[in-house]
Amino acid sequence: MFFASDNSSPVPPQVIEALAVANAGYAMPYGRDPGMDRVREMIRDLFEAPEAAVYLVATGTTANALALATMCQPWQTVFCHTHAHIAEDECGAPEFYTNGAKLVLVGGDHGRMDPTALREAIDRTGAGGVHGVQRGCLSVTNVTEAGTVHTPDRIAELAGIARAAGLPVHLDGARFANAIVATGATPAEMTWRAGVDAVSFGGTKNGLMGVEAVIFFDPARAWEFELRRKRGGHLFSKHRYLSAQMEAYLADGLWLHLARQANLMAAWLAEGLSALPGVTLRHPVEANILFPEWDEGAHARLQATGAVYYPFPAPPGREAARLVTSWSTRAADVDGFLAALRG
Amino acid sequence: MFFASDNSSPVPPQVIEALAVANAGYAMPYGRDPGMDRVREMIRDLFEAPEAAVYLVATGTTANALALATMCQPWQTVFCHTHAHIAEDECGAPEFYTNGAKLVLVGGDHGRMDPTALREAIDRTGAGGVHGVQRGCLSVTNVTEAGTVHTPDRIAELAGIARAAGLPVHLDGARFANAIVATGATPAEMTWRAGVDAVSFGGTKNGLMGVEAVIFFDPARAWEFELRRKRGGHLFSKHRYLSAQMEAYLADGLWLHLARQANLMAAWLAEGLSALPGVTLRHPVEANILFPEWDEGAHARLQATGAVYYPFPAPPGREAARLVTSWSTRAADVDGFLAALRG
Amino acid sequence: MFFASDNSSPVPPQVIEALAVANAGYAMPYGRDPGMDRVREMIRDLFEAPEAAVYLVATGTTANALALATMCQPWQTVFCHTHAHIAEDECGAPEFYTNGAKLVLVGGDHGRMDPTALREAIDRTGAGGVHGVQRGCLSVTNVTEAGTVHTPDRIAELAGIARAAGLPVHLDGARFANAIVATGATPAEMTWRAGVDAVSFGGTKNGLMGVEAVIFFDPARAWEFELRRKRGGHLFSKHRYLSAQMEAYLADGLWLHLARQANLMAAWLAEGLSALPGVTLRHPVEANILFPEWDEGAHARLQATGAVYYPFPAPPGREAARLVTSWSTRAADVDGFLAALRG
Amino acid sequence: MFFASDNSSPVPPQVIEALAVANAGYAMPYGRDPGMDRVREMIRDLFEAPEAAVYLVATGTTANALALATMCQPWQTVFCHTHAHIAEDECGAPEFYTNGAKLVLVGGDHGRMDPTALREAIDRTGAGGVHGVQRGCLSVTNVTEAGTVHTPDRIAELAGIARAAGLPVHLDGARFANAIVATGATPAEMTWRAGVDAVSFGGTKNGLMGVEAVIFFDPARAWEFELRRKRGGHLFSKHRYLSAQMEAYLADGLWLHLARQANLMAAWLAEGLSALPGVTLRHPVEANILFPEWDEGAHARLQATGAVYYPFPAPPGREAARLVTSWSTRAADVDGFLAALRG
Repeated sequence: MFFASDNSSPVPPQVIEALAVANAGYAMPYGRDPGMDRVREMIRDLFEAPEAAVYLVATGTTANALALATMCQPWQTVFCHTHAHIAEDECGAPEFYTNGAKLVLVGGDHGRMDPTALREAIDRTGAGGVHGVQRGCLSVTNVTEAGTVHTPDRIAELAGIARAAGLPVHLDGARFANAIVATGATPAEMTWRAGVDAVSFGGTKNGLMGVEAVIFFDPARAWEFELRRKRGGHLFSKHRYLSAQMEAYLADGLWLHLARQANLMAAWLAEGLSALPGVTLRHPVEANILFPEWDEGAHARLQATGAVYYPFPAPPGREAARLVTSWSTRAADVDGFLAALRG
Repeated sequence: MFFASDNSSPVPPQVIEALAVANAGYAMPYGRDPGMDRVREMIRDLFEAPEAAVYLVATGTTANALALATMCQPWQTVFCHTHAHIAEDECGAPEFYTNGAKLVLVGGDHGRMDPTALREAIDRTGAGGVHGVQRGCLSVTNVTEAGTVHTPDRIAELAGIARAAGLPVHLDGARFANAIVATGATPAEMTWRAGVDAVSFGGTKNGLMGVEAVIFFDPARAWEFELRRKRGGHLFSKHRYLSAQMEAYLADGLWLHLARQANLMAAWLAEGLSALPGVTLRHPVEANILFPEWDEGAHARLQATGAVYYPFPAPPGREAARLVTSWSTRAADVDGFLAALRG
Repeated sequence: MFFASDNSSPVPPQVIEALAVANAGYAMPYGRDPGMDRVREMIRDLFEAPEAAVYLVATGTTANALALATMCQPWQTVFCHTHAHIAEDECGAPEFYTNGAKLVLVGGDHGRMDPTALREAIDRTGAGGVHGVQRGCLSVTNVTEAGTVHTPDRIAELAGIARAAGLPVHLDGARFANAIVATGATPAEMTWRAGVDAVSFGGTKNGLMGVEAVIFFDPARAWEFELRRKRGGHLFSKHRYLSAQMEAYLADGLWLHLARQANLMAAWLAEGLSALPGVTLRHPVEANILFPEWDEGAHARLQATGAVYYPFPAPPGREAARLVTSWSTRAADVDGFLAALRG
Repeated sequence: MFFASDNSSPVPPQVIEALAVANAGYAMPYGRDPGMDRVREMIRDLFEAPEAAVYLVATGTTANALALATMCQPWQTVFCHTHAHIAEDECGAPEFYTNGAKLVLVGGDHGRMDPTALREAIDRTGAGGVHGVQRGCLSVTNVTEAGTVHTPDRIAELAGIARAAGLPVHLDGARFANAIVATGATPAEMTWRAGVDAVSFGGTKNGLMGVEAVIFFDPARAWEFELRRKRGGHLFSKHRYLSAQMEAYLADGLWLHLARQANLMAAWLAEGLSALPGVTLRHPVEANILFPEWDEGAHARLQATGAVYYPFPAPPGREAARLVTSWSTRAADVDGFLAALRG
């Protein structure tokens, strides 16, 4: 009954096997391994983007910060949601990699950026000429930190506002697979067809040991990205072990199978929670994260049964939690959690 | 017959097995996995340093750049060898992580820093008061880029010069295991007993997929390091897979077995090369890197047999190469190479 | 009738004379001029701070950014008002000089930071451990961007909240003189007695060509500041011309005379505006900045008479403006403006 | 008898007068003063560059560092002379403003970069692909730190090597006027006609209080420069006082008159020194800096007469000095110095 985070799950056996297979003999280092050639083509096919530049890094923070640094000058802004991962959970990595760009926080319910608020924030920015920071880029997150999902239309609306102001668009897809499963959209629909220029395509939260792809649909700044990656210490010499994981992830739709299980378990858990008296959900459950609230006392009952999750602040008399399901969550975990909660 | 680099070798089966074992169930993320607790203690024991702060990162560039940033202010210098990895092969990562510290290049034969040159460089630095950059720290490399080894006494001599000027000392130990095997020194003798404050303890070049430890003997700046690591994107959520590799590396002296094989193969190769007429070695072969020079024509012969290595510039009529052995180099590779060279 | 900004005014004749006097003969460069020795002592006396480290720079942005960089690590935050000059008008200079620290915006009416909001912002910051940026320092502005003034008590309240969390306190005193005149407080009461660690003590907006002092009451990080100043290009070789201006500014209370005239003209203007039907003031007028609002049509009338000021956005049917008085504003300017407004 | 530095001289009366004249009434801030419009046109005329972007800053370090940051990416290099001011005397300002670019030091006699050494340094740089820093720009200094002068031909030779490799060229002209006077070249011949893209056109060392122009012959990156200038704290609100100084400097060839006097005094001093037995000059005296060497004992004699200058290291039995003349050096100073030296 582990619901603390999808980054605490094991990896599926296919990933271990892929590492073992990739381990044979010598391989050229620094991304010149044949596995990377295959991964590049698989991702280009998947995104229907035959020209895309594709790179692998090991953490989501890296994928985001390097992509943003390539899209945003030091004296510019990144427009992002108030509670975006890049704003709250990366210890200032975007500021570090951009050499001090400013994150402009844009509000919106349930983790989704409000289009009107985005437009206003863009309008306000740079209006003071040389005295203020200048407009840089937009970063949208899918799945959001609130566990909600942006549809391609919603992304297109936000990206359209940015592009109308001349700004490139980044998608933080640490849970891209969960968003794809939730919406039924294709990767192309969710990204470049909706106006996205660069994607952090997550693998780690959905079953890899630590692999994320960064995809630029326009390869114009690919070389700059490569230099930034190396300079940041993120170019792996034994790169084949990143490639192997990503190849296994994409092969036979494994990435979608994994995300489907995570989302399914979240849906079951949401259904079960909703049926319990006194239990409410702060945000719509659209992917694999839930924010339930219940009456005081349940934390103790749950922890007594070994449930692991992060408690959240709640009003007096109530308790709240963040629950995350993953590819390895089993129905029995959900049932056990609900039973413990029921008391 | 692969002698291009030790970063192109596979990993030993123990590493794959360790990953499989570590893959069971859930594990706390971000270095709070029990495997990291074991690794920390193993490294403290190995270095006889019960208070040491120990961290894992995935690349050598990261280990070096983060360690240096913790030891050196932006307006200070890093004293290093003219051909140090941090100076020539990291695309400015030390400058990036330190926010612009200056690498002061110190010469010395065969990749080893000359003590007199170091003393002069330190004396010169900061003499202009506020107008020039200030003295920062010393970084020594062992094994050097020339394939030579610093003995503990030599490190102590260099570190002593630095410490007399109040400067902390970093050891880039990307091939630390090879240096230990070459000298017979203990890890403590090679580091803190010789005046070293922080070590990049390499695993990747000696058989891991991508794991390096950073060790601070004085834990005073450990929290700063943790923040810099996160901010740099180098804190792994599924950290257990780093821990598992390092644990397997240290268990039963595997790390020394691997390095012994690499060094042994280099010694055989050096012996064989020396016996060939017209073949010379630019630097003493003390670990697992060789810089042979031979008469024109051998490149073609070697490549025809499938030998892989990096050619080097050479005088007219001659050819040169850099050859690197690793834990996976077999005697047959050495024999085959020598046979092809013999022609 | 120039009310656009106090940075468009000329300098008083004493400043020109001081430059002429300082121009005799040779003077040691880089702050070693005897004038700087006198300035240092004058400022220490004025602030009753015999140990204070005192430096001169040429712009307010520099004074703020260098002071903040000395007080705040790259992975930390600067707590400041939502509309602080450092947040809106310095093109990211604080982010640049700190190497990417994050400005956390704290709300509050009329340009003054709300103590409760500050406490909440501090409580929120760093709560996520290594994943989020850490608490850095507090920056308070006096006079505020809204033209209001913090009393020493109000500064002490804000500083007390910061210091209880272990955070140092910076005061952006670009209009320090106007705040002193408005409150009747002594410089010591307004700063270190209220818990302030470092001050940007402005001269430029109050009659100098471009001179600001940075004062650290604890000189512990003075040398770091000197290196940062030089590295930022802000150490003047012919420093005597900065010293001479500041000396003239402080001599015989000139700085207070200048600020008194500015505040007096603002008070007269405020009184006149308040007496006009349909004219309102958005913020209390406590120093030398006014934010009046009036019925549509007045802009045209005012501009026809040659009045210069910045219009501000206003609701339909209304117009708004920012008016700034300075030492060189004459009563006739105020009367002329009011007459034109009256129509 | 002050020969310590040209930055210790007073300013000529024309500069004080210009400040007094510029002080009348209100002036638009931040470079929108009419004086700046005049200065821009004067500099464009002087350099025969009607499209040039022209900016004023207050220090030479700033002019250099901002120009270089606009010409060089963080992962690139600045090729400069081993003893260039940007390498030795700016406390790492270029590294700070470029966010960590690397200065590659190129040797050459008497402060002039050796063309062959430059070609080799460029060839070496970037050869390692993504692992090493990339070629950025060339920075040449005129007058050099050794007091020698580059002719337009010599600059064209160096610039030609850089441009053949696709690199832009910066000229550090802190003593540009002295170089112009020494060579008789026109400003255009010394800069864009010789392949220079951007110039730091110094005023401070040649008689201004603290004003340098930065000139870009191609205005493409002018807006970036403006943002970097503001973000660095180098945009003056009361900009008219910079403009006024520069205008006075350029009017009626004042800048050349000042430099002529400095160079003339240096030539006389050199002539006098050469005539003395046992006195040698380390570098040709071509502008206003001299590096004499003499027998032990003269320092004491000179200082007894009140001569002020910087002593330099010298071989046993000898003493050395750096002497700098300026616009305010009088023939009597030269005579007095020589008399004291003669003993």
